[in-house]
Amino acid sequence: MNKNKMWGGRFGASPSEIMQEINASIETDRRFAAQDLEGSRAHADMLGATGIISREDADQILSGLNTIASEFADGSFPFRVEFEDIHLNVEARLRELIGPVAGRLHTGRSRNDQVATDFRLWVRDAIDRLDQGLRALQSALVGQADQNADTIMPGFTHLQSAQPVTFGHHCLAYVEMFARDRGRLADARKRLNESPLGAAALAGTSFPVDRTQTAKTLGFDRPMANSLDAVSDRDFAIETVTAAALCAMHLSRLAEEIVVWCSAQFDFVSLPDDLTTGSSIMPQKRNPDAAELVRAKTGRINGAAIALLTMMKGLPLAYSKDMQEDKQPVFDAVDSLELSLTAMTAMISSLQVRKDTMQQAAAQGFSTATDLADWLVRVLKLPFRDAHHTTGALVAMAEKQGVQLDELTLEQLQSVESRITKDIYSVLSVENSVKSRVSAGGTAPERVREQVAFWQNALK
Amino acid sequence: MNKNKMWGGRFGASPSEIMQEINASIETDRRFAAQDLEGSRAHADMLGATGIISREDADQILSGLNTIASEFADGSFPFRVEFEDIHLNVEARLRELIGPVAGRLHTGRSRNDQVATDFRLWVRDAIDRLDQGLRALQSALVGQADQNADTIMPGFTHLQSAQPVTFGHHCLAYVEMFARDRGRLADARKRLNESPLGAAALAGTSFPVDRTQTAKTLGFDRPMANSLDAVSDRDFAIETVTAAALCAMHLSRLAEEIVVWCSAQFDFVSLPDDLTTGSSIMPQKRNPDAAELVRAKTGRINGAAIALLTMMKGLPLAYSKDMQEDKQPVFDAVDSLELSLTAMTAMISSLQVRKDTMQQAAAQGFSTATDLADWLVRVLKLPFRDAHHTTGALVAMAEKQGVQLDELTLEQLQSVESRITKDIYSVLSVENSVKSRVSAGGTAPERVREQVAFWQNALK
Amino acid sequence: MNKNKMWGGRFGASPSEIMQEINASIETDRRFAAQDLEGSRAHADMLGATGIISREDADQILSGLNTIASEFADGSFPFRVEFEDIHLNVEARLRELIGPVAGRLHTGRSRNDQVATDFRLWVRDAIDRLDQGLRALQSALVGQADQNADTIMPGFTHLQSAQPVTFGHHCLAYVEMFARDRGRLADARKRLNESPLGAAALAGTSFPVDRTQTAKTLGFDRPMANSLDAVSDRDFAIETVTAAALCAMHLSRLAEEIVVWCSAQFDFVSLPDDLTTGSSIMPQKRNPDAAELVRAKTGRINGAAIALLTMMKGLPLAYSKDMQEDKQPVFDAVDSLELSLTAMTAMISSLQVRKDTMQQAAAQGFSTATDLADWLVRVLKLPFRDAHHTTGALVAMAEKQGVQLDELTLEQLQSVESRITKDIYSVLSVENSVKSRVSAGGTAPERVREQVAFWQNALK
Amino acid sequence: MNKNKMWGGRFGASPSEIMQEINASIETDRRFAAQDLEGSRAHADMLGATGIISREDADQILSGLNTIASEFADGSFPFRVEFEDIHLNVEARLRELIGPVAGRLHTGRSRNDQVATDFRLWVRDAIDRLDQGLRALQSALVGQADQNADTIMPGFTHLQSAQPVTFGHHCLAYVEMFARDRGRLADARKRLNESPLGAAALAGTSFPVDRTQTAKTLGFDRPMANSLDAVSDRDFAIETVTAAALCAMHLSRLAEEIVVWCSAQFDFVSLPDDLTTGSSIMPQKRNPDAAELVRAKTGRINGAAIALLTMMKGLPLAYSKDMQEDKQPVFDAVDSLELSLTAMTAMISSLQVRKDTMQQAAAQGFSTATDLADWLVRVLKLPFRDAHHTTGALVAMAEKQGVQLDELTLEQLQSVESRITKDIYSVLSVENSVKSRVSAGGTAPERVREQVAFWQNALK
Repeated sequence: MNKNKMWGGRFGASPSEIMQEINASIETDRRFAAQDLEGSRAHADMLGATGIISREDADQILSGLNTIASEFADGSFPFRVEFEDIHLNVEARLRELIGPVAGRLHTGRSRNDQVATDFRLWVRDAIDRLDQGLRALQSALVGQADQNADTIMPGFTHLQSAQPVTFGHHCLAYVEMFARDRGRLADARKRLNESPLGAAALAGTSFPVDRTQTAKTLGFDRPMANSLDAVSDRDFAIETVTAAALCAMHLSRLAEEIVVWCSAQFDFVSLPDDLTTGSSIMPQKRNPDAAELVRAKTGRINGAAIALLTMMKGLPLAYSKDMQEDKQPVFDAVDSLELSLTAMTAMISSLQVRKDTMQQAAAQGFSTATDLADWLVRVLKLPFRDAHHTTGALVAMAEKQGVQLDELTLEQLQSVESRITKDIYSVLSVENSVKSRVSAGGTAPERVREQVAFWQNALK
Repeated sequence: MNKNKMWGGRFGASPSEIMQEINASIETDRRFAAQDLEGSRAHADMLGATGIISREDADQILSGLNTIASEFADGSFPFRVEFEDIHLNVEARLRELIGPVAGRLHTGRSRNDQVATDFRLWVRDAIDRLDQGLRALQSALVGQADQNADTIMPGFTHLQSAQPVTFGHHCLAYVEMFARDRGRLADARKRLNESPLGAAALAGTSFPVDRTQTAKTLGFDRPMANSLDAVSDRDFAIETVTAAALCAMHLSRLAEEIVVWCSAQFDFVSLPDDLTTGSSIMPQKRNPDAAELVRAKTGRINGAAIALLTMMKGLPLAYSKDMQEDKQPVFDAVDSLELSLTAMTAMISSLQVRKDTMQQAAAQGFSTATDLADWLVRVLKLPFRDAHHTTGALVAMAEKQGVQLDELTLEQLQSVESRITKDIYSVLSVENSVKSRVSAGGTAPERVREQVAFWQNALK
Repeated sequence: MNKNKMWGGRFGASPSEIMQEINASIETDRRFAAQDLEGSRAHADMLGATGIISREDADQILSGLNTIASEFADGSFPFRVEFEDIHLNVEARLRELIGPVAGRLHTGRSRNDQVATDFRLWVRDAIDRLDQGLRALQSALVGQADQNADTIMPGFTHLQSAQPVTFGHHCLAYVEMFARDRGRLADARKRLNESPLGAAALAGTSFPVDRTQTAKTLGFDRPMANSLDAVSDRDFAIETVTAAALCAMHLSRLAEEIVVWCSAQFDFVSLPDDLTTGSSIMPQKRNPDAAELVRAKTGRINGAAIALLTMMKGLPLAYSKDMQEDKQPVFDAVDSLELSLTAMTAMISSLQVRKDTMQQAAAQGFSTATDLADWLVRVLKLPFRDAHHTTGALVAMAEKQGVQLDELTLEQLQSVESRITKDIYSVLSVENSVKSRVSAGGTAPERVREQVAFWQNALK
Repeated sequence: MNKNKMWGGRFGASPSEIMQEINASIETDRRFAAQDLEGSRAHADMLGATGIISREDADQILSGLNTIASEFADGSFPFRVEFEDIHLNVEARLRELIGPVAGRLHTGRSRNDQVATDFRLWVRDAIDRLDQGLRALQSALVGQADQNADTIMPGFTHLQSAQPVTFGHHCLAYVEMFARDRGRLADARKRLNESPLGAAALAGTSFPVDRTQTAKTLGFDRPMANSLDAVSDRDFAIETVTAAALCAMHLSRLAEEIVVWCSAQFDFVSLPDDLTTGSSIMPQKRNPDAAELVRAKTGRINGAAIALLTMMKGLPLAYSKDMQEDKQPVFDAVDSLELSLTAMTAMISSLQVRKDTMQQAAAQGFSTATDLADWLVRVLKLPFRDAHHTTGALVAMAEKQGVQLDELTLEQLQSVESRITKDIYSVLSVENSVKSRVSAGGTAPERVREQVAFWQNALK
């Protein structure tokens, strides 16, 4: 057998070294060795069941595939770069193990539908792992929300204290984001869960394959409806990576907050020693490296999305070799996101919250100005915009005198709006402010506790 | 009233010109004037219904909003850049129309939840338009598939003829892609269809607002569960734009095929004069400009996705002004995709298919080699790999002699594999080849007709 | 004259509405009306000088172009969408003004080389404006550096105080970044400064055009060397936009710092009222909106770079209509960056620096630990790693006792390392720390002043 | 020695496993082991020369570093993940080899300036390799241009034949593009060629380091001027990757052309067997896989650019751990581009050009219509637009009769424009057409030969 072992009798020359280097994918696609075996088993089984090959041949093939499975498990499988990719490695090994009957496994199948099947199975597994990671992170956040349903912190807009909120409420905002991420991944999973197997090279096959059987065996909902689409589609990869990019963006926001909150100036939270690092030259540092790395990984995942969208742009149907470049961005995006989720879960679980610092910060900066304005609207029936104007004048007065709003005297308050009564002081404390925000989805501790209960149940 | 009309009594200085230039969004956000009115009406109605303001005030506000609606309709609404954005323009106009009671409209509401509501409503409308556009394009493709269920063309991989397929089958592959696009948009629509209104600035409100009522009035499924999330979330925009990017990628593939097929070398299709352009210097040209522009717009939509993901990276909760930059990329992506869908639908509807050229091309290049190999497997029971090897030898022989496979004599065939019988010629024609691909999702005309019927029904 | 006025006698049908909508670029390319005229003048002049057309014809054309220039200037030029783009609008207008001789202007020229010339001229002007904007921003930063050459602030790594630096030094770091940005733009300008004019449609022309003359007239260094490249190249746009993306990234870092520093927690700087905004519901806020918008615009510029790179991917030579989509991303990126530079210059120029807060922050957090370690190395000759270890023990002691390093007694210091003398206290103050960093490029005030002087001279 | 071996005495706990996993970079940064050693040697030498450490200590360190260099060379260096990164691995190994004096190497240096130095050196080497790769590709293209200076092919716009050009001219268009790529890389190299070494952690150092000496030893032009900038700058990486993205875009265009030209329909060129692949099911295929992979890799390089720009967005000065994520995208982009350049050079060098097919294609489609119009202008002095109109009528006549332009009789020509003489036939052949395009940069063989000569000399 000459060196052109894979492409049959026609080629006069051997692939050059450069061709082998640019073309070989075995270093990458060995990552779906398990999925490749799973697909081959389902196919072999179906070939036997339909009589396309004899039951004995099918059983021999299945037995050989089992041996290969063991070799994968104990690390003894001989990956060989001269066989280019995972499919040909498995096929060559099978032939060594069971002889020429191995050649029957490829009946009614092509590498085009085979790799599409393998990669869908891999991405489906990845989605399941990411979903677990997100669920764990949600649980950690709900745990913090439970502990901090009435921990008061400044609610920021523009990184300026706007109104007091509870830290529990803040944590739950992220629980909502990650719930949407899980929803997107679940939708992507549903959409990918159709089987390309049996599409063959691109046109379907004349062998009486049972695509419904192989789909079922592999956990797919149904066969894909169009064979050209089956081998030329990479939507499932791109949709998963764009969902990952959105999730990474959410993580980057939380990571940014942790970095800012860990600064000496904010000092809202601290991380345990084993989630920070020191410095080779500044031994006093407790650097939130893990948070920074999570924040940075957003870049790689955005990059992966662009890599895939660029790669697929303008490709005519059906399969083009360009599509082989789909693996690295997907692997990198999934690995990056998994690691980020794990690191973030560890950080959230062990976050030490400095309640006093948070509450003191919340009480600064006239953060109950809105409560004051709302009082004017509710009690004095001022139109909102007029109440706003009056409040502005009072804030200016307090700022000028270097006091907080509740430190202004009643006379001072009345000098701006004569109908103000001492009842107004009841809305000027941060505790009363957060308690009053009882609208659906509001920051009031009772609302937060309801949401904690909801999520504790939902994440059970 | 001084020039700081919007921010009350505290500011000593007027926003500088540069501030006005970078900060003003009215040129952009006037595009959701209608949605802003819709949101204000729902809010005013609820304020009246709950007694937060009096019924009379509410009615006066609603009447003023109706006047503004008319002004939008007849183009007489006075947009003014000094009022910065659409919300303040409407508010200022309302005050001119109905006096100080206008100020009560803002009770229990903030620009943060207001803009989040407006933009969700706009994106929801955009999704509905895109869905209609996709449906129309699917119908055009199904129409071509119906006309061309047995039009034979080369099925390409690597832009090399691989196996014959039908043009109808090729069209249906795109119908599947656009079905997934519609699914993604529908999922995005479901996820966005929650109401931020009532989240106020970020913490909820102490006014007894009925968020369920406003949600229902605006066609949302429910209020969002967390007020911080409600004002800081832009997932709905990003998810829609990434779904648009996938759709644009599909369009770029079809556009590329049209460009290639319109070349003199392929000459598979032609476009009518009114969808091509000439040249100022080469009067004979019929340039497929529309297809090229569709292909190009992929870039802008990918760019919009990156713009949004970059913009949101690392933003602490809740609202930051960065988020104001979300509009332009979304508008540009939606406009680009709508235009692309319309242009593509026009092209597909009027595409002239050159059936003879296609079929002749399909018959070249040994495109039934797989059929030959499959015959060896099916009839002679050769293992697939051996059949492949034998076929390779026969192709080499035919190529050397400059003939097609069905032009080899039986003796020549038997010189490579002695058991070949004349029955083999039955699988070497392109007509028989496509007819034989009857596996589920295969290219056989009967399979194509089933799928056409399915889609004709589904798109009714 | 029928409706197909532009493409001559062959087309039987009128471009459909959708074609007009997707194809027309006049709304976009009117932005380089001035450049289009400039190119036409140079071409007409050359046609006359070489005798390709008569001097009289050339003069008549130039006179007509002058009239059009006046019409542009006073806003009376009639832009008409039915003439598709700026080139045909000008040509049609010219024919109205001077009759059929207008038709001679297009001799030896095509829209392909014309648009390439126009757009290069526009981008060259844009680069010059951006360079001016960067220069102004550098001047503002050098001004702050001059005022703050010995203002001490914490030098951060990981947003943790690491070592004291001066605010002047910090400002100069950005001066370096913007200097590289200017260098990149200058390099891009040099590379773009070759003339495509005379490449005609793609192959050059048989008319004896003098490309060197037109190049010189238009301020280009030389004609481009290959006509196919001349009409199919958009590198100059992409290189400029990627340079803009790097610059925007630098601006986003400075903008982030301003946002963080403006927080109540940091309170390192404040912006004047006219560069911040208030809130419709929280009158006390001073939101650094301009900084946030600058930070956000990074997204659009990254998006523009991706739009262009995606658009050009895989386009065969020479011109394809895809390239018409190059304008919007470039315009948007340039506009966004110009506005960002102007806004940032305004912010830096008017930034109020809270020196006391900065210095106090610098003195916290054991920020002179490195100085201590360096003393151990320098005076006691400890290997660096051992000095580091000893310093770590001392920081731990200080932290435990809640004091700063210079508040530890000599006995306490000696309990860890007996050879420490009271001389060590001289290195533990932040003032002495910054003064000691005299290495080239270091933060010592004397180094900062040298750099300020260097830049004041360089920016003259 | 406890497990916290790197960060000294303060940390009570060990980094958790997750921290080690997300934080460790040794698997990535071992790729610049050589550069790390080079930097350390230069630093050690300078420490000895300035007397900061004794000459004996310096020599001992240098001798230890030499041993490590040998260990790298023979593969015996013990990389250990518990030492996190390449710097600490080298440092730990050095201590094992030469004892505590190893600790003196870190005097006046930090990992921040060290990694910045190492990575600059690596990127500089990468630029040099890419420049060599580009040069080789240019040479291959010039070789084809030399062979095909008068090979006639259709010059395409919109993939429609526009005017005949020569294949040599087409090849030279890419030589120009790659020349710009080399220019961009050279500019990036100049800008990166400043030394960060001596910036220490961020503020410079109080040790009397000689930054000019280390800069010179390492081949840098000068020390960087600002220590904060030195440790927080990653422009050099981003600029190199965006230059790579532009280059990859050029390669994608050429790759697309090869794929299209290799199709049976075009059949303009063929690749040798060892640069194509067969198919497991279609033995007759000669797939241009290498070209497709080159085209696809554009995606990864665009992705890398976005990854880096996203990562750096909004990072406050000076060093943040986010920056550690800069390596993977740069390595991936450089590897992808190097491989693409090598593969493309192999393809261009061995491309078989089918001259007859090309020329026949050039003669189709009225490709000399422009020559006809130019004749009308030149000889009959028609204004260009009128000549264009007349040409359109003649093309329509020829198209209707199914003949080429030079097959119309003189009577037929004169029926449209009576002044046409038989001299017009001289401009209607493709040979005469290309010969006539003698304008600077035009496609005439004589112009092409001049450019070939220019480049042969320039690439010597």
